[in-house]
Amino acid sequence: MKPTCSLFDFIEEIPEDINTQIETLGPARIENPLDLPEGCFVTDEMRISLRVSEEFLRQALAEGRSFPAAELAGPRPYIYFDPAKSRAAIVTCGGLCPGINDVIRSIVLTLYHSYGVRHIYGIRYGLQGFIPAYGHDVLELSPEVVSEIHELGGTFLGTSRGHQPVDQIVDALERMNVNILFMIGGDGTFRAATKIKEEIARRGLKIAVVGVPKTIDNDIWLVSRTFGFVTAVEEACKAIRCAHTEAVGAPNGIGLVKVMGRYSGFIAAAATLATKEVNFCLIPEEDFDLEGPQGLLAALERRLKERRHAVIVVAEGAGQKYVQPEKPEYDPSGNIKLGDIGTFLRDRIKAYFQERGLEVYVRYIDPSYIIRSVPASVDDRIYCGFLGQYAVHAAMAGKTGLMISYLNHHYVHIPLAEATKRRKQVNTRSRFWLSVLESTGQGRLRND
Amino acid sequence: MKPTCSLFDFIEEIPEDINTQIETLGPARIENPLDLPEGCFVTDEMRISLRVSEEFLRQALAEGRSFPAAELAGPRPYIYFDPAKSRAAIVTCGGLCPGINDVIRSIVLTLYHSYGVRHIYGIRYGLQGFIPAYGHDVLELSPEVVSEIHELGGTFLGTSRGHQPVDQIVDALERMNVNILFMIGGDGTFRAATKIKEEIARRGLKIAVVGVPKTIDNDIWLVSRTFGFVTAVEEACKAIRCAHTEAVGAPNGIGLVKVMGRYSGFIAAAATLATKEVNFCLIPEEDFDLEGPQGLLAALERRLKERRHAVIVVAEGAGQKYVQPEKPEYDPSGNIKLGDIGTFLRDRIKAYFQERGLEVYVRYIDPSYIIRSVPASVDDRIYCGFLGQYAVHAAMAGKTGLMISYLNHHYVHIPLAEATKRRKQVNTRSRFWLSVLESTGQGRLRND
Amino acid sequence: MKPTCSLFDFIEEIPEDINTQIETLGPARIENPLDLPEGCFVTDEMRISLRVSEEFLRQALAEGRSFPAAELAGPRPYIYFDPAKSRAAIVTCGGLCPGINDVIRSIVLTLYHSYGVRHIYGIRYGLQGFIPAYGHDVLELSPEVVSEIHELGGTFLGTSRGHQPVDQIVDALERMNVNILFMIGGDGTFRAATKIKEEIARRGLKIAVVGVPKTIDNDIWLVSRTFGFVTAVEEACKAIRCAHTEAVGAPNGIGLVKVMGRYSGFIAAAATLATKEVNFCLIPEEDFDLEGPQGLLAALERRLKERRHAVIVVAEGAGQKYVQPEKPEYDPSGNIKLGDIGTFLRDRIKAYFQERGLEVYVRYIDPSYIIRSVPASVDDRIYCGFLGQYAVHAAMAGKTGLMISYLNHHYVHIPLAEATKRRKQVNTRSRFWLSVLESTGQGRLRND
Amino acid sequence: MKPTCSLFDFIEEIPEDINTQIETLGPARIENPLDLPEGCFVTDEMRISLRVSEEFLRQALAEGRSFPAAELAGPRPYIYFDPAKSRAAIVTCGGLCPGINDVIRSIVLTLYHSYGVRHIYGIRYGLQGFIPAYGHDVLELSPEVVSEIHELGGTFLGTSRGHQPVDQIVDALERMNVNILFMIGGDGTFRAATKIKEEIARRGLKIAVVGVPKTIDNDIWLVSRTFGFVTAVEEACKAIRCAHTEAVGAPNGIGLVKVMGRYSGFIAAAATLATKEVNFCLIPEEDFDLEGPQGLLAALERRLKERRHAVIVVAEGAGQKYVQPEKPEYDPSGNIKLGDIGTFLRDRIKAYFQERGLEVYVRYIDPSYIIRSVPASVDDRIYCGFLGQYAVHAAMAGKTGLMISYLNHHYVHIPLAEATKRRKQVNTRSRFWLSVLESTGQGRLRND
Repeated sequence: MKPTCSLFDFIEEIPEDINTQIETLGPARIENPLDLPEGCFVTDEMRISLRVSEEFLRQALAEGRSFPAAELAGPRPYIYFDPAKSRAAIVTCGGLCPGINDVIRSIVLTLYHSYGVRHIYGIRYGLQGFIPAYGHDVLELSPEVVSEIHELGGTFLGTSRGHQPVDQIVDALERMNVNILFMIGGDGTFRAATKIKEEIARRGLKIAVVGVPKTIDNDIWLVSRTFGFVTAVEEACKAIRCAHTEAVGAPNGIGLVKVMGRYSGFIAAAATLATKEVNFCLIPEEDFDLEGPQGLLAALERRLKERRHAVIVVAEGAGQKYVQPEKPEYDPSGNIKLGDIGTFLRDRIKAYFQERGLEVYVRYIDPSYIIRSVPASVDDRIYCGFLGQYAVHAAMAGKTGLMISYLNHHYVHIPLAEATKRRKQVNTRSRFWLSVLESTGQGRLRND
Repeated sequence: MKPTCSLFDFIEEIPEDINTQIETLGPARIENPLDLPEGCFVTDEMRISLRVSEEFLRQALAEGRSFPAAELAGPRPYIYFDPAKSRAAIVTCGGLCPGINDVIRSIVLTLYHSYGVRHIYGIRYGLQGFIPAYGHDVLELSPEVVSEIHELGGTFLGTSRGHQPVDQIVDALERMNVNILFMIGGDGTFRAATKIKEEIARRGLKIAVVGVPKTIDNDIWLVSRTFGFVTAVEEACKAIRCAHTEAVGAPNGIGLVKVMGRYSGFIAAAATLATKEVNFCLIPEEDFDLEGPQGLLAALERRLKERRHAVIVVAEGAGQKYVQPEKPEYDPSGNIKLGDIGTFLRDRIKAYFQERGLEVYVRYIDPSYIIRSVPASVDDRIYCGFLGQYAVHAAMAGKTGLMISYLNHHYVHIPLAEATKRRKQVNTRSRFWLSVLESTGQGRLRND
Repeated sequence: MKPTCSLFDFIEEIPEDINTQIETLGPARIENPLDLPEGCFVTDEMRISLRVSEEFLRQALAEGRSFPAAELAGPRPYIYFDPAKSRAAIVTCGGLCPGINDVIRSIVLTLYHSYGVRHIYGIRYGLQGFIPAYGHDVLELSPEVVSEIHELGGTFLGTSRGHQPVDQIVDALERMNVNILFMIGGDGTFRAATKIKEEIARRGLKIAVVGVPKTIDNDIWLVSRTFGFVTAVEEACKAIRCAHTEAVGAPNGIGLVKVMGRYSGFIAAAATLATKEVNFCLIPEEDFDLEGPQGLLAALERRLKERRHAVIVVAEGAGQKYVQPEKPEYDPSGNIKLGDIGTFLRDRIKAYFQERGLEVYVRYIDPSYIIRSVPASVDDRIYCGFLGQYAVHAAMAGKTGLMISYLNHHYVHIPLAEATKRRKQVNTRSRFWLSVLESTGQGRLRND
Repeated sequence: MKPTCSLFDFIEEIPEDINTQIETLGPARIENPLDLPEGCFVTDEMRISLRVSEEFLRQALAEGRSFPAAELAGPRPYIYFDPAKSRAAIVTCGGLCPGINDVIRSIVLTLYHSYGVRHIYGIRYGLQGFIPAYGHDVLELSPEVVSEIHELGGTFLGTSRGHQPVDQIVDALERMNVNILFMIGGDGTFRAATKIKEEIARRGLKIAVVGVPKTIDNDIWLVSRTFGFVTAVEEACKAIRCAHTEAVGAPNGIGLVKVMGRYSGFIAAAATLATKEVNFCLIPEEDFDLEGPQGLLAALERRLKERRHAVIVVAEGAGQKYVQPEKPEYDPSGNIKLGDIGTFLRDRIKAYFQERGLEVYVRYIDPSYIIRSVPASVDDRIYCGFLGQYAVHAAMAGKTGLMISYLNHHYVHIPLAEATKRRKQVNTRSRFWLSVLESTGQGRLRND
């Protein structure tokens, strides 16, 4: 089946043999304290199909094959942990993203008010907060402490990048008597989470590890959209509108905007669709040539001759073939250090037109941290609220090694191990990307 | 299966016997002029399941029953209408909603640039625009005319409410030689669209009628969310924040906000979840008592005694039992005229506390048209862009009597006749509504 | 001299015989603890002329007459109160206004950090907070307590309207050992402040009373602009834009917006100038007729016939001749209760066109509390910061019975008694108002 | 007298011998067509004092000295140019600034509607638009063309930097029969305007040249504040808030924001006052040391040790002693090319702490063009409207070689020659700057 939808083309790529079995720490025997109307609890038998193609479903069932499905998230009738004896910890890792504080707040309120958990710790500055050598204090969290944090961008707990020794992390959990760990982060964090879960199992501990997927790039596999993404696109659009204003304000004005997107160009593509003022959208998933008759520079020249101004949006991970050093460098999290495609393009474009004697004005905008530091929009805020609630429901039920995801309009449980197997990227044959190309009219930008 | 998701609980309520067969005007024989990569066209055989419960799907197939599914939207390899000879018309009906201009713009750009249709008419002021007696001019639409309209709220074409004679409408279509009619509107509009389609069939004409669902209340059946809804909630939240500020600024301050929602309280409920500052959320789907020990007034009094301020959000259709006259009145569209629950509550609350000698300050805010007149947010803007594109693809393929919908992350075709059979409402047993209740702590508000 | 300027026409109306002498509690003998560069203190001899007409100044001096001038605000080299022994109180009275929290915060930070005052009390809910019978607690204020309050709209301390017994207020000041009282309010508050100051003097106490002028209507005499006004206009403009969108979206659409402005139409007039989409701007200072050939209704009809839509902005105090009952009512502060000109106009306009058989759509927007409850804009925020600082400098120097004002680009001291003698209103012969008339093209709207 | 006010400290620095005489092209003999109430015209004898110190005024008058005063702006009873025969041109030069389109729109509407001028030309891309070699078309302007331009940021006409031959410019004016030229620009533009005016005089032509001061830096001498400045500060504050969010989100997080301000640090200083979250504010007017015990780096280290995060705002022209090459370069307008203090500080800070083994996270934000490309805020919008109106009144009266200014709450005429004699800068001994220092607590940052 052809993908038809906007940001969610990956749905039909979900493989049949995906393992969506969720681990549990043991049988859930404590009655859930939630005061819910009858029949409002969710059982593990409630599962939703991840694939929705009628043809696929029919064939799979006709042939007796399984089809990929996931456990529904939600409060279970029986839980594993005794709330009165539970101690939960929350840690936020990696880069900032709008909505982190909303997730923290939702976790705290649900633990406290819905389940009656009274000991909730905020781990400061990401995984560093577990390591005594850093000397970061642990915060005691309560409804009062978190009551206003959703008004602020960023993370109230602080964050950091990079690996920390798994044994020291589990030592810290033991020391604090924590039996529930919420980890808000991206695929790097989830890989760490998996190792922590394994070390916990090795030691025979009963500590649940539940992830909430966070990435400004919207590139986590098996999540329809990550929180904060919509807010980030809204901010990116503001920068693009300014670039457009600058471009039309100068003779042969060129507005060039670099946005986030290391491996996945969702922000660039979505902002292009939303503003409708972008003439070239460059993303990591689609190679482009700079030189040559079909290359970006020549196409840009044609555009300028025709319309006297142009707007280019480039994801930070695009065009790396031009800016990667021979020996790539890596950041503390182990991510390759990207070359700066933004300033490279700015300089190359200037040089190109200088060579050709055409006076152009390049206005380069790198909104960078402005995009990810704002408070969440209302839509993301609601989303974060649910993610936090479902994370608590899963943890209290004794589930571990999973993340909360949103697929086919349902919140579901996905094993962390599956989520980190791949990265979600823009499908360059999808209607989504084809619409971007129609909007920009940029053509292929490749000489081959 | 229990509903677990946010705004989309209705998915599991979609009945098995739903008719999702789309009518066509005839065989599509003209090659689609779109220059797409191989395999990027969509065929009618591509359908997606509307229900996603694994158990449901297994049983349905095991028992040889069908399960509800819908045709995927998208460009077909062959189309029915010759673009060179086509004349399209666009009409917007009913109340304003953020994003209408984005839909219009997308339809025009797709017709013009993707298919080469050169004659596009904008019908002014809703169905009135078809009726000669009103004397409204028809606008010629082109990419240039619509290039900036998405920056403005409202509808560039104008709109109106109320019925118009179907035969005169079809007369007008004949007179203008229109063979494609796009109708942007709600269920009233879609009922008119169905009648227009039938009259077209009766006359043996070949005119496609394609709907794009529009309602600020998000209450159209078989659409996950209507465009503009997210933007509207964002605006509603601003009013609620002001109400909260007013409430805490006065001794026993009560902020009371009336928001849209005639039969469906989605805006009230979503804004409650997003702001987290609402203490009472009243929606049409959930009856409440004013008087009595469990009624709103007593609950409000308890809240004031405890916290000295309170925020109430009421959907305009809530509590109608208190404000409906014995003989209800109707508006030109045939909708019942709602009693004004907002000012009623304001006055009743004042009187109640005056009787009890408690000085309270009621700050009543009715943001009304402010919510629906703003330009669309980025997220809605992208959504509108796709709705417009898919409407054009459907129409060019000769499909008629359908609306474009978005379900399970896919754009699909839904027969108008099915969409108007029911209304989408808040499921008061869903996690969505339960989360609202947890957030407000309002309790049942009923004495029975 | 003719007035030429925007909102500040009143400058040339300031009478020559104005008394700008500021009272002090006694000689200032304590060295100011501020660590300022040499020569950065301000002395009472530094005064600025309130009038700036060259001709006026020349004549006044030639004839040996005085010209109105005011004492410059700022830190004095010597102060009256010993910071270590000082206790300050802050009270906020009357309606909300953007920026109140910024003023509170600035007062607290300046008292604490610049002067070292350690006892600062926040009086809750306006003058009620002084009266034991209400049972409101007093808040201890410190830099920590106020550190984030500027992010919120409204007043952190709460407010109320209405008179309270002056002797009980001074009793409370005595009981708390307060020697500095900051009153943030409008002319009603300033009249109370004057009485409090007199009662203080009668008792032989040494308590400074310093006012910071606050009114959303911008109608305080002898202040160029009140804080929050610019923010309020920004919000009013949003409502007007929505009204315009609604008006153009319907055949014969009429957008009608009621904004604040009991006696002074500054918000209505400034918003009209800023949006440029208003066709009729009605303010209390300019009488208008509804009926008759030159009246509003006939003018509106002409406008609709010509352009098919219209936008009307009405200040709440305009057209009271149509809506005042024979026996006027009064609110707790002693202000006359205004009739509701907004709904009156809405209904009268509907009736008028119904009589004449012209179908019109009236969209009535009363943004009310939304305008005054938002956080302050950056410009107002800076302004509030200075107002708070200068209020503290004045109080520490032992000055009393004054307010901080901003005139001719300087912060100055103005006696409360002078400030309450008149009300600032729109000069309907000024360039400011003439520009409004040019922008709307509304004409005189009077039959005489 | 000590300066006491916020952004307008320069008022008391205006020298006594300033020449405020405005040139005219000849006697104004045509009756002004404006339909104004009696006595609403302004005459040249109406002048306002630029200085307002009572003491200064008394002394000056006692000693028979003149005091600096300026002609009031506004419509004159008689005008010089016959509107029916007039042709006006508008040109926008230099960098973008919020509100340019508002000024253009106001000029066009006033020319057209108030005076009846029917030929108005928009010169494209700054002074380039006069030079045939560039081949830019001239735009015909009318109320219809400009009706919506105020909704957009930037300049509708386009702009450019750099000198163009004065004789060719005047040739173009002659060729187009233009007799009124409006130049919207900064001091470079005003110097060009003065030369154009001189060349016009040399040729014996009757062409009025009227300037409207525009600079995002707010650095034009003899104007209280330039339009767009308030809007720019609002945008700068958004970036600073993000920097603060980033800083607190990381262990030893440092938010570093570069804002505009080549020679004058008004944006940096005002944004510091408004956000209250800045710890170091660096402006061109105040030298600072990087190294040494009192230098920025040591102070930053102390701050981090105490609070673990810091926010630095640096104006682009600050600290040039560290980043200027030995041979400075110049841009087309003749402005010196500033070294990039932003990236220099970022790198030096990183290196400093790396040397000292303290892991810090530097988040560098250069919002650059985002600040100046947004549409104007409501306050700036009103201001721009008046500037445009008064520019037209001055031009129609035959005045030339002047700019419209706003001083002491009045709009006045200032000779261009005076305005370009100096630059307005932050007075580092003013209450304004002292308040910035109190807010940041940064100390002197100098070792001497």
